[in-house]
Amino acid sequence: MQALDRRREHLMSVAARAFAERGFHRTSMRDLSRASKMSLAGMYYYVKSKDDLLFQIQRNCFQQVLEGAAQATASVSQPEERLAAFIRHHVTFFARHMAEMKVLSHEAESLTGGSLDQVRVLKRRHAELCLGLLADLDAKTGGPPVDRNVAAYTLFGMMNWIYTWYDPSGPVGVDALVDAICRLFMNGYTAEGTQR
Amino acid sequence: MQALDRRREHLMSVAARAFAERGFHRTSMRDLSRASKMSLAGMYYYVKSKDDLLFQIQRNCFQQVLEGAAQATASVSQPEERLAAFIRHHVTFFARHMAEMKVLSHEAESLTGGSLDQVRVLKRRHAELCLGLLADLDAKTGGPPVDRNVAAYTLFGMMNWIYTWYDPSGPVGVDALVDAICRLFMNGYTAEGTQR
Repeated sequence: MQALDRRREHLMSVAARAFAERGFHRTSMRDLSRASKMSLAGMYYYVKSKDDLLFQIQRNCFQQVLEGAAQATASVSQPEERLAAFIRHHVTFFARHMAEMKVLSHEAESLTGGSLDQVRVLKRRHAELCLGLLADLDAKTGGPPVDRNVAAYTLFGMMNWIYTWYDPSGPVGVDALVDAICRLFMNGYTAEGTQR
Repeated sequence: MQALDRRREHLMSVAARAFAERGFHRTSMRDLSRASKMSLAGMYYYVKSKDDLLFQIQRNCFQQVLEGAAQATASVSQPEERLAAFIRHHVTFFARHMAEMKVLSHEAESLTGGSLDQVRVLKRRHAELCLGLLADLDAKTGGPPVDRNVAAYTLFGMMNWIYTWYDPSGPVGVDALVDAICRLFMNGYTAEGTQR
């Protein structure tokens, strides 16, 4: 990674933590300057404004999640394994980016105009990726056991809620967390599918 | 309900919507006075401060959820049915109180001191109720299929995340939502349990 990219990453990461802890509206660029040990001018080299910073955090996060999910599922042929790979990637990513997850959730409505639209498009693509994986699985097991949209958003709830309770340095390792969520959802969804 | 209780309920409900839409810190008592059509003096008859109002919203909500869950599970003897009754009650309650759910989630850390402590006690009791139901089920099926804490918080994620996506006036009715979440979790949890 280039030095400039590293400084941008550093700023994004510090800002995500600050927004997660204190909220977007209550955090100033001066607060971020102190926390990142970057000058205001230095920060404005990377972002146009605090709104732009929030937008970049949200866009980068969804782009990484989308690209990672596409990669994780590309090399797998069976529908069950593709869905499991999607879950594994998502939970692993957010267990390592819990501040960003909280910002995505709590500050979704703090974006406006074109930024909001762009993030909504990414979010929609992400949901559609998940819905497509469920549809592939349904085609194999004979149809969705429950409303497919409800199943997809319920799965996102299982995975995204971790920012409220999970401690990556606690007794449950990320792999065990991934494994538990994966098994609970896969069994729940396919148990129904195969019962009909 | 007495007129005074109705006015208190009205204030709580208006405040929950305002906090959910705009955030606790960006909403003033004057905003709430306008939205509730109550005078400032009228509001201060029911609450000591804006902080007290947030505390009362959170405490009332958890108390109702706890009491409702205790009632819903009391008359049922089988562990599966008790857990299903718990899920049913929780999802039904929050599908009808989505603004409150968002406030519980986004403004958990806006409470301080004794208020924070009191709400934490209620939250802990609620989690323990759920853990107890899972333990009863495990005793029947032969032990937890996945870490019981992880299972409990994953279930809360399935149920609580609805405030981010569910539209009670949309195509999926509350009963269908309850049914889907109930089936996904129960099948996921018990399919594993019975497979070992």
